[in-house]
Amino acid sequence: MRFDPASFRWEGAATRAYKDEPGAARGMGWHGVSRTTLVREPFELRYFEFAPGGFSSLEKHEHVQLVTAVRGRGRALIGAAVVELAPLDIVETPPFAPHRWMNSGDEPFGFLCTVAPERDRPQPLDDAEWEGLRADPLTAPFAF
Amino acid sequence: MRFDPASFRWEGAATRAYKDEPGAARGMGWHGVSRTTLVREPFELRYFEFAPGGFSSLEKHEHVQLVTAVRGRGRALIGAAVVELAPLDIVETPPFAPHRWMNSGDEPFGFLCTVAPERDRPQPLDDAEWEGLRADPLTAPFAF
Repeated sequence: MRFDPASFRWEGAATRAYKDEPGAARGMGWHGVSRTTLVREPFELRYFEFAPGGFSSLEKHEHVQLVTAVRGRGRALIGAAVVELAPLDIVETPPFAPHRWMNSGDEPFGFLCTVAPERDRPQPLDDAEWEGLRADPLTAPFAF
Repeated sequence: MRFDPASFRWEGAATRAYKDEPGAARGMGWHGVSRTTLVREPFELRYFEFAPGGFSSLEKHEHVQLVTAVRGRGRALIGAAVVELAPLDIVETPPFAPHRWMNSGDEPFGFLCTVAPERDRPQPLDDAEWEGLRADPLTAPFAF
């Protein structure tokens, strides 16, 4: 798939909203995120892009996500850690680690994300996980 | 894993030769290629870099490789096609498609490559595949 640096898009790949649902459960809200599916088999490869101020839902799931930042600057909660992301930084979300991605700059932030085609659905955090994040000043900004 | 743009390397990731074996079988020679393993589970993610003039072995295998170009310019044989690669172009090698990667520029050429941790070993082409490549002026430069 041919990449076009001017539009930061791949030829023939359709870009859509991050999720079909608005995310009504606690922490599952999101803003300013698009999703572009690039490859489906044997690995699913998606490109997620966050407008300035954009953020994904705060969620967990069993399947691992392999993330490679490719555009702009981002900040992520992964488990109990906060990581800064710049192009070609690589990070994985371990099974059931709560995670949330944010644009931390003033240009678009984007990453490539590899997952298994067959995988479990994201779920909201339980009370203990939520309270744990709220109790730590480092992670509290991700629990909203 | 933190990426360092100045060295084009990832912190803590060891870079080694592309393969342990020199590749004595027909087409299996290679030159000027390094390999850096970045992630092992549940997907194996490697970074391959080709010095100017560098090329990989001409091979096939059942497992699919998902390739994302990230540095310089390259040219690849994939099956009966020749593709040009620039940063963030994405390509897959289908099961048993003969393939070979080359640096086509005068700076390093590099790509990220995702494969399954459990996979079959690369093998040389059979006579029919070899002769087919040699018979087509487009693909003949890859059969050496």
